[in-house]
Amino acid sequence: MDKLTTLTLELAPPDSFDVSPAKASSLGPFLQGCLMEHVDSGYAESVHGLPFNPYSQHCVLDEQSGRLLWCIKALNDGAARAVIDPLRSVDSVSLRGIGKTFQVSKTTSESISLASLVDLLSGESVHKQTVHFVTPTAFKRKGSYEFMPTPRLMLQNLFMHYNQVYGGSHEVDEDVISYIEQHMRISSYNLRSQYFSHAMGEGRKIPAFVGTLTLSMTGPDPLKNLVRMLCAFGEYAGVGIKTSMGMGALKCLKPNKPRQSRGSEAIS
Amino acid sequence: MDKLTTLTLELAPPDSFDVSPAKASSLGPFLQGCLMEHVDSGYAESVHGLPFNPYSQHCVLDEQSGRLLWCIKALNDGAARAVIDPLRSVDSVSLRGIGKTFQVSKTTSESISLASLVDLLSGESVHKQTVHFVTPTAFKRKGSYEFMPTPRLMLQNLFMHYNQVYGGSHEVDEDVISYIEQHMRISSYNLRSQYFSHAMGEGRKIPAFVGTLTLSMTGPDPLKNLVRMLCAFGEYAGVGIKTSMGMGALKCLKPNKPRQSRGSEAIS
Repeated sequence: MDKLTTLTLELAPPDSFDVSPAKASSLGPFLQGCLMEHVDSGYAESVHGLPFNPYSQHCVLDEQSGRLLWCIKALNDGAARAVIDPLRSVDSVSLRGIGKTFQVSKTTSESISLASLVDLLSGESVHKQTVHFVTPTAFKRKGSYEFMPTPRLMLQNLFMHYNQVYGGSHEVDEDVISYIEQHMRISSYNLRSQYFSHAMGEGRKIPAFVGTLTLSMTGPDPLKNLVRMLCAFGEYAGVGIKTSMGMGALKCLKPNKPRQSRGSEAIS
Repeated sequence: MDKLTTLTLELAPPDSFDVSPAKASSLGPFLQGCLMEHVDSGYAESVHGLPFNPYSQHCVLDEQSGRLLWCIKALNDGAARAVIDPLRSVDSVSLRGIGKTFQVSKTTSESISLASLVDLLSGESVHKQTVHFVTPTAFKRKGSYEFMPTPRLMLQNLFMHYNQVYGGSHEVDEDVISYIEQHMRISSYNLRSQYFSHAMGEGRKIPAFVGTLTLSMTGPDPLKNLVRMLCAFGEYAGVGIKTSMGMGALKCLKPNKPRQSRGSEAIS
């Protein structure tokens, strides 16, 4: 059974490079360019044109250290060999588009078995799932960008991506999606728009969002478990469009009190 | 022609009362109770059961002074006489539900003519309108609460409210709403959920949201002006459900750069 592998390169930004969380995520397209330089062209061709890629990558700022974390995730063994392995030993990363070179100060690699994701399907169910959209996230629906999430947009995208990578086809049963939708709602959120620059200098910006939301689920346990499994898969695959360009990085959080505690304060 | 009148009572919270923005807005239902004690019962009865009230009220924290601002807005002269006039000279406000009395430290009254709102219809048009949802806002659609805004939910609600107050009926032409909807989109937002306690101790909380969004409008100038006028009306009427309980207070902001400048930073 396949493994899901994460390679994290900690990058030291040059002194001349002023970092912020938004700027970190906007490096995604340049890092994708750099990644492509290391990937075997045969592999690149074999996945080109697929509706969903078997890998994702994004960049975030580690606010504590001031370093950039470039995270590359391979969803199966083929992608790990093609995309992760060539990057394990690089000691610097050149971003041609902006003419900067970042030294790699640390390299970390982690992997989990696909079985451990699948195990979630039969595990203990939870009725809430909090999701943090780490980098700008957007969906496409009927040819236009959607930059406010809905349970349907999220789950449909994750489900199709999962099937593409492990089933070879992104077909999903509309009845299943409708059933999930009927049993799920957003119970709290803290989201804001953040446009994503697709490519430098061309002024093409994709409307997107970042932030946090909590999904509440009703219905039978297997359904809740499926949603939980798809969200866990989303930590590797990302969600929405252009996850290989640095968009749609997702993190599952433990459902707890909303982040703005002031906002949910009760009168006493 | 009618006037739209705002009465603002600055309330000094007792020392034992710890204030926060969320707590300020949660005082709405208690202040509504207090308001009703001062209103002529004949008037209260005459507006009871109307789909939209000719007044709104809400409470916000003035973070600079630490005082609470209780804002009561009358949308026509009848409401000004009935709801505003009796409160002009009160020097304290007792909130029975929480057993607290607030001294009034300042009273301010302002009014604008309805004509000045209507003038917006023929003024210079703008293609962006930024709206700040000051207190928790929610809509009802098909019997359930909606706590993510859409242009349709907002504009339909404002339009119906406007027609109710100045036309006597909340009927609006579906074609007009559809036309507005086709020419309007949310171009940026920063919103989060904030539940609103409808009444103390009963645990009834309405899912709602606060924050900011910018509407972008295309289409002919009269349409843009109509949207602008309805948003200006919303500063008095509020938007969405329970505007007389303190929900849905709205402020029109000048469209400018998104508030989170870090979030929209471009790479350089």
